[in-house]
Amino acid sequence: MPAPSNLFGGIPTQLPDELEELLAQGRRFRLKRIVSRGHNTDWYHQDENEWVTLLSGAAQLEFEQQTFVDLAPGDFLLIPAHCKHRVSWTDPRTESVWLALYFD
Amino acid sequence: MPAPSNLFGGIPTQLPDELEELLAQGRRFRLKRIVSRGHNTDWYHQDENEWVTLLSGAAQLEFEQQTFVDLAPGDFLLIPAHCKHRVSWTDPRTESVWLALYFD
Repeated sequence: MPAPSNLFGGIPTQLPDELEELLAQGRRFRLKRIVSRGHNTDWYHQDENEWVTLLSGAAQLEFEQQTFVDLAPGDFLLIPAHCKHRVSWTDPRTESVWLALYFD
Repeated sequence: MPAPSNLFGGIPTQLPDELEELLAQGRRFRLKRIVSRGHNTDWYHQDENEWVTLLSGAAQLEFEQQTFVDLAPGDFLLIPAHCKHRVSWTDPRTESVWLALYFD
């Protein structure tokens, strides 16, 4: 019988870098949990599509031409392959837990 | 620029049946949102693997030999293909929102 784990568990007290873990993988996708706490990222220019949702915390994505999207828990969006973007802000006071599904 | 939707939004007041919606699809997977409110299901005996998480509410899965797994928000598990299971209970007082990723 499969035993459950929890998406909000197993988060270290200190997070010098974003935490990134593979949750499931198929032939044409990878599902990851990402945990941020005040982190932001460089620009991504991915060859894969990314379906992403923020499950806790608060975050902001930046797209080209200084376009910003604020994310609250439950918000999800599809970032098509080659759509340049970055995480411009995550709440420094709490964990932002993301689920990201990468696929071609 | 992609615009976000919310996993906890767009839930009808009345849910005579579980609500099931396709969120993303690739060549070898389907990602669905399922919303239950007091529903249970018949037995599933799937040809696909299912990675599933409960995002809100409360639910119970039943596996063979009367084995039960209680799920709280954030709990996730992988149900391998052909692992017989059913949703034996969901909280009738609130929405149980699931994310389910089916893949081969």
